[in-house]
Amino acid sequence: MSKEKIEPFMNPRSVAVIGASRKTGRGSFNVIENMLDFGYRGKIYPVNPMAGEIAGIRAFPDVKEIKEPVDLAIINTPRKTIPPILKQCASQGIKSAVIIPQGFSDSDEKGNSLQLRLTEIAGETGIRLLGPNTLGVINAFSGFTSSFMPLKREIAPVGVVCQSGIFFVGSSLFTGIMGKGIDLGNSCDLDFSDAVEYFGEDDDIEVIFLHIEGMNDGRRFLETAERVSRRKPIVSLKTARSEMGARAAASHSGSMVGSHEVFESAFRQTGIISTSDPEDILDFTKALLNLPPMKGNRVAIVTFTGAGGIILIDDMYDQGLEPARLSPYTITAIKDLSPSWMPIGNPVDIWPAVMKNSMDHVYSVALEAVLEDPNVDGVICIAIAPELPENSYLDATGTIRYIASKYREKPVVAWLYGPEQKTVSRKLERDGHVVSLPSLPRAVRTLGALYRRHLFLEGLSV
Amino acid sequence: MSKEKIEPFMNPRSVAVIGASRKTGRGSFNVIENMLDFGYRGKIYPVNPMAGEIAGIRAFPDVKEIKEPVDLAIINTPRKTIPPILKQCASQGIKSAVIIPQGFSDSDEKGNSLQLRLTEIAGETGIRLLGPNTLGVINAFSGFTSSFMPLKREIAPVGVVCQSGIFFVGSSLFTGIMGKGIDLGNSCDLDFSDAVEYFGEDDDIEVIFLHIEGMNDGRRFLETAERVSRRKPIVSLKTARSEMGARAAASHSGSMVGSHEVFESAFRQTGIISTSDPEDILDFTKALLNLPPMKGNRVAIVTFTGAGGIILIDDMYDQGLEPARLSPYTITAIKDLSPSWMPIGNPVDIWPAVMKNSMDHVYSVALEAVLEDPNVDGVICIAIAPELPENSYLDATGTIRYIASKYREKPVVAWLYGPEQKTVSRKLERDGHVVSLPSLPRAVRTLGALYRRHLFLEGLSV
Repeated sequence: MSKEKIEPFMNPRSVAVIGASRKTGRGSFNVIENMLDFGYRGKIYPVNPMAGEIAGIRAFPDVKEIKEPVDLAIINTPRKTIPPILKQCASQGIKSAVIIPQGFSDSDEKGNSLQLRLTEIAGETGIRLLGPNTLGVINAFSGFTSSFMPLKREIAPVGVVCQSGIFFVGSSLFTGIMGKGIDLGNSCDLDFSDAVEYFGEDDDIEVIFLHIEGMNDGRRFLETAERVSRRKPIVSLKTARSEMGARAAASHSGSMVGSHEVFESAFRQTGIISTSDPEDILDFTKALLNLPPMKGNRVAIVTFTGAGGIILIDDMYDQGLEPARLSPYTITAIKDLSPSWMPIGNPVDIWPAVMKNSMDHVYSVALEAVLEDPNVDGVICIAIAPELPENSYLDATGTIRYIASKYREKPVVAWLYGPEQKTVSRKLERDGHVVSLPSLPRAVRTLGALYRRHLFLEGLSV
Repeated sequence: MSKEKIEPFMNPRSVAVIGASRKTGRGSFNVIENMLDFGYRGKIYPVNPMAGEIAGIRAFPDVKEIKEPVDLAIINTPRKTIPPILKQCASQGIKSAVIIPQGFSDSDEKGNSLQLRLTEIAGETGIRLLGPNTLGVINAFSGFTSSFMPLKREIAPVGVVCQSGIFFVGSSLFTGIMGKGIDLGNSCDLDFSDAVEYFGEDDDIEVIFLHIEGMNDGRRFLETAERVSRRKPIVSLKTARSEMGARAAASHSGSMVGSHEVFESAFRQTGIISTSDPEDILDFTKALLNLPPMKGNRVAIVTFTGAGGIILIDDMYDQGLEPARLSPYTITAIKDLSPSWMPIGNPVDIWPAVMKNSMDHVYSVALEAVLEDPNVDGVICIAIAPELPENSYLDATGTIRYIASKYREKPVVAWLYGPEQKTVSRKLERDGHVVSLPSLPRAVRTLGALYRRHLFLEGLSV
């Protein structure tokens, strides 16, 4: 059912762009030009009474003049003109419309009643609405977008549902990658439940990300999210947590914002992996795409630096994780390489052993030992990201990648230190068996997310 | 007094390297080779009974054979040989020694008593000791290091005091830049008070960073830190916060770790800006080097995205910050550019105005208005980091940089979204009037640190 509702937005065969701008080129925010740049190859009908053509395409003075079937209307006209335009669209048989402009429940009294009118028209005519106050959709798979902001096209199994275009434009800082997106804006008709259900059934999508300021239909959403979570992970950033934030949300997306605690506890039960830190989104998405759920809370640390191991342990407790008690067999394997005075425990500090043996040998013995250990559910590796190439002898990431590929049922994450963190991390992540995080606390929180995923899938309390 | 104690470590005219390795080249961890690569031009006396020369320098079989004055001994021999070597050094008139090896209070009973013996020898002979279990020092200004790990030389006004070499090797991820460093290791003699006092009096250093696992002389440290904080900011990462973390610290640097709450509250009174998140260190250091303290807790937000503003407001409360109530004059300046339906408040959402005017014009009016506003103590700018150069019309950072340079008494920080965050941030930070942070919560925490700095300097409760 949500398939029917959302599909014309994501894969329209023909679109009418009503209020299409005649301005083209850099800085013009021209929807049609963007759509073409993004790769849209369906029919486009620009509607503008002042223009004969737009971006080389014949324009129509009025939607009534289009005599062909139109799957989707994209409306970008002054707010007070939108209700009559919408009725016209509906009477032309158009079943779906993106309403781009601001100035509705995100603004004044007038805007509020205009938005109520939009919802009424949807109810009366059956036309489905996305927005207002939205960039609309992005579908990199089919090559369609309604965005007036230029967007990168990237085929990736991540679906984004948001209430702000920032998650489209700044996606590299949030989910990192994004193949499809639905910006609900003020959400006068289509809502979180519709979008989540759609991505739930979409085989192109493996992880769903939600940016939620507030929502009106909480119960239906929770039911949907719980069902979809069983099939694929849902990560969420719930904002407007504070009272002042909630007030600001009312004038941003016009959202009614419930108590943050109520949201959080309801989310937990649906399996949604929620966070309030936008940087977690990037990490969690990457981990959930590449690594298995962590089947227990016992974490081993393999490290060149005791100090780093201590920071990890401090952070574990907040995530319900704990340092694994290594089995005697594991201890022995590492002890054999270390100086006799070295107390072996977890964190496994392998620097003293490295001083006596080759780095790759020590790392591979230690990592293999903890991955074999039945007392260990997941591993955090600390290693060096040396300046390349002159210090490449300090680089143990080839070894980590190889060993991790042999034990794919336990998640392995890493934190690399040194001036080349980004470059060496990309190398480490190449086959998708290890995820590298930019800081120690972020590595712990990421394993925490993989543990939460396990608890939910097993029906255990998160 | 600390000048005398520490100076021979930071600026030795001559060093004896005892236990100098004959192995040179990549992966040899050769102290002498590293020292030469780093730029040391003083006298070096390798000591190794098996070698005639090391790295082209004549070697001595024994420290007694060196007939010239030696400022500093760097000792890297098996642990049990160190007490007699140390006594020999002292009797040769050497007043300072770095003790590199592990295997002391970071290890077993034997190691513990060996370390006690080192402290005794220091007491009996007056020789000052750094370590054991340390990389020693780094002084990029004079070009000296005792590190066996290769390090980058970078003249920067940041002094690092730590209990692990990770803060030298990974400095780009902690303080970002680092001109001088002292690794206290197990701290059997020289301690945090000595190092902090030294950097306090060092005109090369403007910001001090401390990595603290534990300390033995808390009271003296707090007195020193309080005095030094008045002259220059001290940022600290206190680790071993958890009980398990504390246990791990005992076998890392052999530290006695007090209660985290006691540390935190004592630190606050000394003006130390403390955090438990390593990523904050990078942000706080950059901000304290470049921006003024924030003289109140009222923050204005200028943003293209309402959603981003809401995330900022949520995070402000944890930092004791609040959204400024803009004066009517400021509101009017922004209202004049915006559509009539637009409710103007803080966050100042300028996107609707940008749709009607040029981006640079709107951004400069809004930013100048909030910086002029007597109700505003600091500003967070949200702007786009577009893919360059084809979308450079979206880039408002030139304007932000220019306006911020005119109002240097109020801190301006930024968060940029889009695929080129790093590149555009560097451009924005070029003259040092704006600091750009990688995430919204980090921007808020950074202003929080500048506010804490103000409270301390004014004698207000932090």
